Amino acid sequence: MGVKLGILGLGTVGTGTVQLLQDGIGRHPLLQEIEIYKVGVRSLDKSRAVTLPESVLVTDLDAIVNDPKVDIVVEVLGGLEPARSLILKAIENGKHIVTANKAVISRFGEEIFTSANKAGVYVMLEAAVGGGIPVIQPLKQSLSVNRIQSVTGIVNGTTNYILTRMQLEGSNFDDVLADAQRLGYAEADPTADVEGLDAADKIAILASLAFDGRIKLEDVYCEGIRQVSKTDIAYAEKLGFVIKLLAIAKTAISPSANLPLSSTPPISVRVHPTLVPKTHPLASINGVNNAIFIEGQPIGQVMLFGPGAGAGATASSVSSDILNLVASLKTNTALPNPLLACRHQDYCQITPSSELVTRFYARFLTLDQSGVIGKIGTCFGDRGVSLESVVQTGFQGELAEIVVVTHDVREGDFREALTEIHSLPAIDSIPSVLRVL
Amino acid sequence: MGVKLGILGLGTVGTGTVQLLQDGIGRHPLLQEIEIYKVGVRSLDKSRAVTLPESVLVTDLDAIVNDPKVDIVVEVLGGLEPARSLILKAIENGKHIVTANKAVISRFGEEIFTSANKAGVYVMLEAAVGGGIPVIQPLKQSLSVNRIQSVTGIVNGTTNYILTRMQLEGSNFDDVLADAQRLGYAEADPTADVEGLDAADKIAILASLAFDGRIKLEDVYCEGIRQVSKTDIAYAEKLGFVIKLLAIAKTAISPSANLPLSSTPPISVRVHPTLVPKTHPLASINGVNNAIFIEGQPIGQVMLFGPGAGAGATASSVSSDILNLVASLKTNTALPNPLLACRHQDYCQITPSSELVTRFYARFLTLDQSGVIGKIGTCFGDRGVSLESVVQTGFQGELAEIVVVTHDVREGDFREALTEIHSLPAIDSIPSVLRVL
Repeated sequence: MGVKLGILGLGTVGTGTVQLLQDGIGRHPLLQEIEIYKVGVRSLDKSRAVTLPESVLVTDLDAIVNDPKVDIVVEVLGGLEPARSLILKAIENGKHIVTANKAVISRFGEEIFTSANKAGVYVMLEAAVGGGIPVIQPLKQSLSVNRIQSVTGIVNGTTNYILTRMQLEGSNFDDVLADAQRLGYAEADPTADVEGLDAADKIAILASLAFDGRIKLEDVYCEGIRQVSKTDIAYAEKLGFVIKLLAIAKTAISPSANLPLSSTPPISVRVHPTLVPKTHPLASINGVNNAIFIEGQPIGQVMLFGPGAGAGATASSVSSDILNLVASLKTNTALPNPLLACRHQDYCQITPSSELVTRFYARFLTLDQSGVIGKIGTCFGDRGVSLESVVQTGFQGELAEIVVVTHDVREGDFREALTEIHSLPAIDSIPSVLRVL
Repeated sequence: MGVKLGILGLGTVGTGTVQLLQDGIGRHPLLQEIEIYKVGVRSLDKSRAVTLPESVLVTDLDAIVNDPKVDIVVEVLGGLEPARSLILKAIENGKHIVTANKAVISRFGEEIFTSANKAGVYVMLEAAVGGGIPVIQPLKQSLSVNRIQSVTGIVNGTTNYILTRMQLEGSNFDDVLADAQRLGYAEADPTADVEGLDAADKIAILASLAFDGRIKLEDVYCEGIRQVSKTDIAYAEKLGFVIKLLAIAKTAISPSANLPLSSTPPISVRVHPTLVPKTHPLASINGVNNAIFIEGQPIGQVMLFGPGAGAGATASSVSSDILNLVASLKTNTALPNPLLACRHQDYCQITPSSELVTRFYARFLTLDQSGVIGKIGTCFGDRGVSLESVVQTGFQGELAEIVVVTHDVREGDFREALTEIHSLPAIDSIPSVLRVL
C-alpha cells in the first residue's frame, strides 16, 4: 500500500484535508498513493462531516506518533500543547511532519528544526502562513535565488476584514468587531488577531525563510489595530491611503551595500497598522483575503494573493506539503533534499526600532490654532524630521485637529520630536501615530 | 567541482542569469555549487555586460550539448531553431534542460517531453511564462492537489502596457503602439504580441499543467488587440469594466459534475481582449506587469502577480529552475521525481468555440434610432440570448451607437443572432464584439 498518514486532529483543517484526499478525481495522481491510516481525535462520539473506517479514528494521539507504520504525521490540532510534544516525538521516531501550526513553529522552530535535521526528516508548513496561498515553497525555492529586500504581508484575515469594513462603512472598530464576532469572522476572544499576535507569528516564519536565519518571536515589534479610529481612516483616505495591518520584514540597509559573503543583513520585523498608498498592490486586498508582497534583487516586485484561511484553502496547502513528501519518499533519495530541509543555524540580526527609517502619520488635537502648526513644525525640524504634508481640516469639539505625514525619518528622531510636541502647552493630545508604507 | 552549466545564448536573459549566478551573496547557498562551464554565443567579438573566462565563451553550440561534462543545458536563445534541435540533442545526451522558450515548448512540447522522459531528464520552464512570477512550479506542485477550474492570465506585458495607456490617456491603439515601439516596450514587428500569439503560447503551457494533458497550439482560439478602440474602452469604463488581453483556460463543464476517474474535463483555451469588471483582481494589473489568476477546488481563488519580462525577473526564474535541478542532482535520487517530470500522455479535450458559454459586449452603429433597440433585442431574444444592459449614448457622425452586454450565452447562439442583426436594414455595422469575464 501507499504512504501512511497519521493525522492529528479532525477540526476544520483536518476535515478539509481528509475530504480533499478522499476525493482524488482531477487532482495530482500521486495523491492516490496516500493512505489515511490513522486520525487522532478527542472523542469518537462526535458526528463528523467525513466518513472514516472505525479502525482509522482513534483517541490516543501518542500511539499515532509512535506507530512504526506511520510515514507522515499531519499536525492540525492547533495550539501549543500537546502539538509541540507530539511533533517532537514524531520527529524522534523518524516521521516527516506537515503542520499548519504557526504558533508552534514561531515559538519552537529552533527545537523542532534542529531535531528534524538530526533525524533526517522534513517539517513542512505551507499552511502556517497565508492559508491556501503558495508562499512558503516559493520563498524556500523559486524566490530564494533572489536577495530579498522586503516581505510585506496582509496575513491576518480577521483584521483585514475589520479594517475593510471600517473603511467602506465609516464605522468604529468596536462596532465592526462585534459584528464580525457575530458573523464568525472574529473569535469570541479576538486578542490574537486584533493585537497583531497571529500576524507576528506569521511574519516571524516568513522573515526566517526570506532572510535565511532564525527569528526570536520577542524581536518582532507588534502593534494591533485597536487604536485605529474611523477618523484616521477618513484622513488617510483624504491623503490617498488606506489603513492595513501589515506584517513587514525588511532589510535595514541598502541592498547594494557590500556585505561579507557569510553575513546576513540586519533586518526589522514588525506588525503594525500602516497607511498604504492607494496605488500599491496591497491597498486593494480586501476582506478576509491575504496577500504577500515580496521585493528582491533581481526579480523586482511580486505579490501572491489568495484566501488566508478556511477549510478548503488550508487543506490545499496541507495536501501540497503531503504531496511533496510523498514525491520525496517515492524517489528514494540518498541524501536530504536541501530545498526541503531547514538550513538555518544562526539568528537574524534585528535592527532596534529606534534605528528604523520609515514614514509616519500623526494626528494632534490642539487647544488653539494660531501658531500651533509652526510650533509642531519647529519641533520636527529641530530633530531633522521633514514633513511631506500638514493638514488641518477637522475639529473635535473645541479642539482643532492637525494631521502630519513625514518623509522617511529615523524612528528615534521622530519619537523625540513627538515627546517635545506633547509637552507644548498648545497640544491637548496625540491620539494617533501610524506608520506609512 | 560543482554542477556544470552549458548556457546557450548570452542575450538579455542569458546575461541576467550569468550576473545573478556570479553574484551569490545573500542568495540560496546551493547556487555556489554551480559552475558556469560553457556559454555559447554567435560572436566572440561582441562587447558584453559580463566578464567570463576565455575558455568559457564559445561559438560552437553543438559542442556544448555534446560535451559529456555538461550537466545542465540552459537554453536562452529564443526562437524555434536551432533552439529545438539543441534541446533535443542535449536531452539525448542525458542533460537536464532549463529553458525560457515558450515558443519551442508550446509547439514541440510533445517531442521534447517524450524524449526527456525516455532519457530520464527534466525540462524546466519557469521562465517561459510570467517572467519572474513563480507560476509553473506552483501549478506543477502546490496547486496540483486542487481540481483546477480556470487559469486566467495577463501574460503579455506589451499588450497590457498598450491597453493601460489607451485607458489612462484615451488614446488610439495605433498612436500608443508607435510610442511603445519608440520606448522599447513593443518590438519593431509587434505581431506576436498584439495578435495574441505570444499569449497563446503561454496559455497553452499553463493549460497543459493546470488540466494535466497536452495542448495543440492550433486549438488555442486567438484574437489580438488591434480591433480594440478607444470608443470601446470608454464604453467599458462607463459600464464598470476595463479591457484586458486575457489568456484563459477553463473547464467547460461544471466542476461538480461526476467524472470517470481517468478522464480530464473538456476545456476551452483562448486569448482575446476581454471586459474585466473593475472589482476583479486582474482589473488593476497595469503596465508591463503580468498576473495569473487561478480558481480551483477546494482552494478558491489565488493570484500570482509580478514582472512579466526583463533580464532580472527572467533570470530569477531561470536560476530557480537551475537551483531545483542542482538540488535534485545533489540528492542522488534513485528514481525520477514525479513533481519535476512531465506526466502528460494524452491531449486535453477542447470544447469547440461555438459551445462556449460566456458574456459578450457588442457595439452597433445604426442608421436611425426608432425601433432599432427593439429589433436588436428581438434577434437576441429569438436565439435565447439574454441582455444584461443596453446603452445608447453616443453618435458617430450621422449614426447612432448602441452597446449591449449579454448574460452568459452559448457563443454559437450569440453569433447566429449577430448575423441576423447584421442583415437588418437599420444596422450600418458592428464595429466591435468583445467577451466579458
